[in-house]
This record gives sequence, C-alpha cells and structure tokens, in this order.
Amino acid sequence: MTVGPERVREAAERIAGRVRRTPTLELGDIGGASVLAKLEFLQHTGSFKPRGAFNKILSSDVPQAGVIAASGGNFGQAVAFAAHKLGHRAEVFVPSNSPKVKADRIRSLRAHVTIVDGWYDEALEASRDRADETGALVMHAYDQPEVVAGQGTVGLELAGQVTDADTVLVAIGGGGLIGGVAGWYEGRRRVVGVEPENSQSMTAALAAGEPVDVEYGGYAADSLGTRRAGEIAFAIVSKHVERVVLVSGDAIHDAQRRLWHEVRVFAEPGGAAALAALLANAYVPEQDEHVVVLVCGANGDLGVLSEDG
Amino acid sequence: MTVGPERVREAAERIAGRVRRTPTLELGDIGGASVLAKLEFLQHTGSFKPRGAFNKILSSDVPQAGVIAASGGNFGQAVAFAAHKLGHRAEVFVPSNSPKVKADRIRSLRAHVTIVDGWYDEALEASRDRADETGALVMHAYDQPEVVAGQGTVGLELAGQVTDADTVLVAIGGGGLIGGVAGWYEGRRRVVGVEPENSQSMTAALAAGEPVDVEYGGYAADSLGTRRAGEIAFAIVSKHVERVVLVSGDAIHDAQRRLWHEVRVFAEPGGAAALAALLANAYVPEQDEHVVVLVCGANGDLGVLSEDG
Repeated sequence: MTVGPERVREAAERIAGRVRRTPTLELGDIGGASVLAKLEFLQHTGSFKPRGAFNKILSSDVPQAGVIAASGGNFGQAVAFAAHKLGHRAEVFVPSNSPKVKADRIRSLRAHVTIVDGWYDEALEASRDRADETGALVMHAYDQPEVVAGQGTVGLELAGQVTDADTVLVAIGGGGLIGGVAGWYEGRRRVVGVEPENSQSMTAALAAGEPVDVEYGGYAADSLGTRRAGEIAFAIVSKHVERVVLVSGDAIHDAQRRLWHEVRVFAEPGGAAALAALLANAYVPEQDEHVVVLVCGANGDLGVLSEDG
Repeated sequence: MTVGPERVREAAERIAGRVRRTPTLELGDIGGASVLAKLEFLQHTGSFKPRGAFNKILSSDVPQAGVIAASGGNFGQAVAFAAHKLGHRAEVFVPSNSPKVKADRIRSLRAHVTIVDGWYDEALEASRDRADETGALVMHAYDQPEVVAGQGTVGLELAGQVTDADTVLVAIGGGGLIGGVAGWYEGRRRVVGVEPENSQSMTAALAAGEPVDVEYGGYAADSLGTRRAGEIAFAIVSKHVERVVLVSGDAIHDAQRRLWHEVRVFAEPGGAAALAALLANAYVPEQDEHVVVLVCGANGDLGVLSEDG
C-alpha cells in the first residue's frame, strides 16, 4: 500500500498530457541558501490536486454513477475538473462552512454539488452514504495510493527540472503531496515537511507513532487543516522525511506578501507555507544549500494582499 | 540607431545573471490555436522593464550623480532596482496623477522620488531640467537603443524556450518591448502588436508614416498609455511587425479574469492585452497555429479581480 518511485513513474505516464508541467523560478538568495520555487499553483484548478485525481480515475473502472468526493476546496475542484475532462459524472459534498466561492467554482466545473451542514467530517460521512446508494467511485483527498502517487509526479517532474536540489520543502495538510514527493525521492533528496502550528496532524502522528486525531484551526486551516494525517503519507513520512517543522499563521501571511512583492505570485496560505519555513527560520539551510519550495496552491482570497496595493 | 539581433544578443550577455529567465506555460487551445504564455511578469519588479534598464546602465559611463528617469510606474521601479543593484544613485520623477502606491514602490527600491504636478509629460520635463543640473544619466522608458535592445532579450530568451512558435503577440505602450522583440526576430517569426482602442499611438504612427501625438486614456492607460510612439520602435515595427490590432478595455479586463481563473496569474491590464487580442478575436489564428502571448506585467490593482473571489 506504500508509494515508491515505480508507482509515481506509472502515474506520470498515466496522466501525461492531462496536467500541466509547471515551471520553476529562481527566487535567489534567502538566508544564504539558493532558493528555487516550483510554481505548481499554475496547475489546472490552481493546485497540485488534479494530478492525484486524474491518476485515481484513470486507474479505476469508473461506474455509470461516476465519482464522488467530499471537499470544501482544492480537491473538489480537481475531482470535478478531471471527471469532466474524462467524461464522467462527479458529485462533490461540500461542508456548509466552506466559503461559498469554493462551492461555486466546483459547480462551474460541472460537478453536482451538495452542501452538507457542518465541517469536512460531516461532508465526508454524507458522501460515503451517498456512494453506498449510487455505487460511485470514492475519491479520497489524500489517503488513497493512486492519489498519493499522482501527487508524487510533482517530485518526478521537479527532478527532471532541477538536478542539484539538496532539499525540498513541502507543506503538509493530509499528507498527499509530501507522501508522493517523499515516496518518489525515497531518501535521494532531503525532504522536509512544513505544518502550521495550529494544524499539526503529521507532527502529532510522528509523536504518537501513528495518525491520531488533532484539533485544528487558524490562518492556513482552509488549505492545510486536517483532523488526522493519512495512513499512507504517515508511513512514507516516517521513513523518508527528515523532519517536519512548524510555522505560525503570521509567518505564512508574511510569505504570501513576500511572494507577491518579489515575484507577483499570489499563493494561498497552504501554497506559501513551505517558503514561510525558510523566511521564519523554522528550516535553517546551510550556506549555499540548494532549496526548492513547492508553491502548491493559489485558491485563496486576494483580499489578504489588498492592503499592500 | 535601429536594434537587430546582434544588439539584442549583446544585451543578453551584458545583463545575464541580473534578470530572471522567466518561464513559459501552455495555456492550451484558444480558438483552434495552441497558445503558450511567457510569464515575464515574474521578472524583478513585476515587469520586463529591468532588462532595458540594466542594459542601458551597463552600457554607459554612469556619472557620480547616478541615473534619472521620469515614470509613474514600471520603468521607474526597474530603474530604481537596477541602479541600486549596480551601486548607483537613482532619481525618479513621478507624475502626481500616478497612484501613490507606485511612488511608494519606487521609493522602497531606494530611489529618490520627486512628485511632479501633472502627468507623464510634466514629469519628463522636470526630470530633464534636473538632469541638466546634475549631469545624471538620462534613462528613457522606451526610446533609447540600449533600452529597446534590453527588452528584446525577452524575444531571444523565448526563442531558446519555444522553437515552434508561429506568432508572438506583444502589447504596445511606447513600443520598447515590441521594438526589441521584433528587432530580435527580424521577420523570422510573425510578430503582432496589440494596442488598447483608447491608447493607439503606434496605430496612429503607422497611419501617419511617423510617430504623432495622440490622445489617450481608458482602462489600460496606466501601463500602455503613451502620447507618442518611440522613434526606434516605430522604425522596427514598420518593417518587422505584421500588423497592430486593437482591443477594448473590456476585452483586457476579461483577459485578466481569464488568466486568474485558468492559471491563477494576476496580470495588470498591459500584461493581459496580448491575450485579450486572441480572446476577443482581434487576432484570429489559423487552425493549429502556435501562438505565444507575452504576459509582461503584474503591477496592477488586485481589486479588479476581487469580485470574482
């Protein structure tokens, strides 16, 4: 059930032509390190998630009822996008506490949206009940091997673009992205995880020796908040991730501002978290270390930058 | 005084390491064409302008008094950035009618800013009087060969990234960018210019057979409005640009929205104008034509997208 280089390579072949090859950009010297960003927010639907969605759907026999997912955000958009492109029906269960604009975006991608009173867990439960009725293919945002392998293609692509990276910094929500990327590298590069202080499901899992439930909230919770780290990601992170560091909401906001001011890139909080780890010295590189930050999503509220003009 | 491939190649060598090599991104099928964007807004200071600024300064004996320019926007930031990096003083004369945030950005790049009552022409005159006093090196936003050659390195870089382009769409303000790009290609690729309907200095110049004064205003005027096309650009455009097409302010705004919704790119009006020409059928490509749009600036007001969430 783990994900290694072979599964990631297969995923890359499977989804080739369906996803964008996202470019990299040198950010220059930060704290003595030479820093490069992979601009994965330029991916379809504004996050890395279509990679896993395509890989899951293309690996499966999709029934007449199509696919089904619970998500208030990026994964819902990715599932809707991939299903539509592949000619399948998609149902997405969205918690009522998600911003209305996110449900609207999922709808605009032709998925059938059901709003469920509550938070992600309530939406997930409702989506499972519905899947039992319809027989639709259940898509999980981060804890299915095909999804993790799909996200891992970010790492495979990066390895083809940047051969001298020492370290890759990756934000963690449920762990799909870091699971895939660390599974791809399997220790050939240093991979470091980044979690918000207020949403540290992976840190808690590492401390407990297994995924455990945590409270979460705070500034980046809309993209990185998770009650419990994925089992697949946890197993990979335990083996192949050097460590997981924590950043504050303020540090994430500062990183968003820095990305806008220096490269005119708008990242959502989860998309800026990896850079925040560098800027806030949560990860301290060595002199001349080559560091890559994954800027992995841009589905945020532009208003957070508006005071900066 | 014209700018051709040799001057552009020299400029590229001169400014190597000072400017970012900006990536390209496939936008997919638009109107039957295969469209690719060059993301030049990722350049330092958020526009292509540092290329020309660095080339001008590095080609010159800069006096003790440093460099001087008039600009309400992107060129002012570029001059301030390049001068600071190269250890020179910079003075920028900013018209009082420019948004305050632009003067603030120029100041934050360590230039001395003087606000001049009025518009660009008043600021330009004041900057020339001051240059007569101080002996500072005068930097023109688009009508100096070193500046045009520097902007042409966008074309040289693109040619190394994309070998199968049929057509390159380039927005026109004073003409520095299209002059450099068309000078670089010298007819080896189809180069098409794009002007806002309300700021058509190059269209007027082509009609008159020489640069002439025009009225300008409207939505994209802050980045593309110019009273008179540059002499250098006019000569190159007359020879090497297939045609110049016009787009409305609404079409430019639509292109900004499209860039945000489909690739999470925020472009200023001038940065979105080239894409607007395709979307609004001002330029109609042939089936399977390979078209590149230069997304050349991002120093706009994020508020124009805020209603879209």
